[in-house]
Amino acid sequence: MTLLPSFDIPDIADAALKQRLQHKLDHKTKPLGALGDLEALALHIGLILGSDAPCLEQPQLVVFAGDHGLAAHGVSAYPSDVTWQMVENFLSGGAAVSVLAAQHRLALTVVDCGVRHDFAPRERLVIRKIAHGTSDSLIGPAMSLGQCADAIANGRDVARALPGNALLLGEMGIGNTSAASLLLARLTEHDLAECVGAGTGLDAAGVARKLGVLQQVLARHAGATTPLQALAALGGFEMATMVGAVLQAAAERRVIVVDGFIASAAVLVAQRLAPTVRQRCVFAHCSGERGHALMLRHLGPNAAQPAKPLLSLGLRLGEGSGAALAWPLLESACALLRDMASFESAGVSGPQA
Amino acid sequence: MTLLPSFDIPDIADAALKQRLQHKLDHKTKPLGALGDLEALALHIGLILGSDAPCLEQPQLVVFAGDHGLAAHGVSAYPSDVTWQMVENFLSGGAAVSVLAAQHRLALTVVDCGVRHDFAPRERLVIRKIAHGTSDSLIGPAMSLGQCADAIANGRDVARALPGNALLLGEMGIGNTSAASLLLARLTEHDLAECVGAGTGLDAAGVARKLGVLQQVLARHAGATTPLQALAALGGFEMATMVGAVLQAAAERRVIVVDGFIASAAVLVAQRLAPTVRQRCVFAHCSGERGHALMLRHLGPNAAQPAKPLLSLGLRLGEGSGAALAWPLLESACALLRDMASFESAGVSGPQA
Repeated sequence: MTLLPSFDIPDIADAALKQRLQHKLDHKTKPLGALGDLEALALHIGLILGSDAPCLEQPQLVVFAGDHGLAAHGVSAYPSDVTWQMVENFLSGGAAVSVLAAQHRLALTVVDCGVRHDFAPRERLVIRKIAHGTSDSLIGPAMSLGQCADAIANGRDVARALPGNALLLGEMGIGNTSAASLLLARLTEHDLAECVGAGTGLDAAGVARKLGVLQQVLARHAGATTPLQALAALGGFEMATMVGAVLQAAAERRVIVVDGFIASAAVLVAQRLAPTVRQRCVFAHCSGERGHALMLRHLGPNAAQPAKPLLSLGLRLGEGSGAALAWPLLESACALLRDMASFESAGVSGPQA
Repeated sequence: MTLLPSFDIPDIADAALKQRLQHKLDHKTKPLGALGDLEALALHIGLILGSDAPCLEQPQLVVFAGDHGLAAHGVSAYPSDVTWQMVENFLSGGAAVSVLAAQHRLALTVVDCGVRHDFAPRERLVIRKIAHGTSDSLIGPAMSLGQCADAIANGRDVARALPGNALLLGEMGIGNTSAASLLLARLTEHDLAECVGAGTGLDAAGVARKLGVLQQVLARHAGATTPLQALAALGGFEMATMVGAVLQAAAERRVIVVDGFIASAAVLVAQRLAPTVRQRCVFAHCSGERGHALMLRHLGPNAAQPAKPLLSLGLRLGEGSGAALAWPLLESACALLRDMASFESAGVSGPQA
């Protein structure tokens, strides 16, 4: 079994830089605070990148893909084969995230973390397969602790090898809303029913069936209470690999753009391993998947403050599509900080006394 | 006095095209409806442009600028001179909207609709000045009906002269949240107190003072009840010019991207003149300015359904900054419709029976 390194990720707090950023924002040619959440975002990115003129460079959108043994129990509206078929679709440019990545010039990489299919090697596909799908978590743990540690190490390797200072999280895995719901319920102790939704589009009877299966899974793994135990017992290879990538990106002080329900579940696990991870995260959107709004309450800067995502468009696709859609707002925040004139430089009068 | 032409703007409803668009969306490689509001947006833009593969071309961001006689009564935190100073800032690239327009390659035009300043002519500045600011609406109408009609005609000319199939609305005018609040109250009969906010940043005492002034203005013009009478008595040159541009853009079936409180007020007036205008409008964001959420309730497809803006970031800047920030989402909607693969073309399995 691979031993996990410690997750020592420094705090990004820097009072002097924060003051400098706020001063710059407050002297731009606009009323105080008039750019709303964009100002908070600019300040946040400045703190993450340690600069009062932050510049996002070579953004990397990584789609982590894996299959789930649990999918055999009909917890998804789609068959497992859709996972590998969609990987092909990502790579050939036909998926939503492919189109959005092209629009915003995001480098797109797909990682086979454990898909039930053997891919021909090619550009932009990274093979870090632990197995052909996880085991059935209704019978035993989805993966062993060793496999889980290996997947996390894979994620660290993947992130380390990528250039740039921003990582956008995407995923693909038929059955992975089930895994994310289970992790949410276990790590936050919310009732499972609050954490389970329609996924790719189950009807009410389908959701009830899914909930019934997941209740059995959760009960079976009642002893898996630490973040790593829970991740191994209930998670997926794509999620464990994503946890590793998040930890690595955070350690390198990259901006991490969190997509929807599944990506947020990976960040929830990473945050339990290293609480400062959250400081590097920008939450792209609130998903239409039941459970995501609840999950965001556990990803805020403190217990009283939920994470505030940039978009709320009722997306429930995953793939990193929400992260890609929110990306221009991050670019805008940095551009405004860098390029807007100040009242002084533009010769504009300030407020009346 | 210029006579207003009739505003005969055809309905965009086209059942066959709508069905074709919906069919395309439903066969893209994603669960049904998984792209949420982006799908509704794609369908909407398709209907506006009359195409099942819509392409946004040469988008024009126009900032309509004008001054307000009412500003003499301290209804704004900033002096009137800021209007012309910001026009200079727009043109020299230092304003928020300049930075955002450059980011998204939006052509930026500034129209002097009635600024209290004489500008040196230059590229991207269009002079259509009715007067050096409106009259003080506490004493008489802000403008005569003739001036109002001239400003509307100016707006039609400005829009007609611009290329492309999308118009993004921006504005600048110290005092214009007052004018927009007055129009909202008059045209919807909501209580003025619900329609008045902090504008560029008044404190509570400032808002109370502003409300007091506006109550007097509204009472003085109790007889100005038609949309044009209200626009003339209570509005501004930049707003009347924007009304004309909106009517012209709608008649030409351009996509109209509506910014915040002031732009929405112009659309509210245009909609009262020609109800089908609203069909061409995409609402970019819900402003932080008090009254905007209320106004959006009157701009929806029907009385029961408020207009649903794309973003909600607490912006309260105007200039067209919100329209520019939302622009990539419109581009995404069209790109997804055009470029995503179908289940069939990508060889991806559909839902399980």
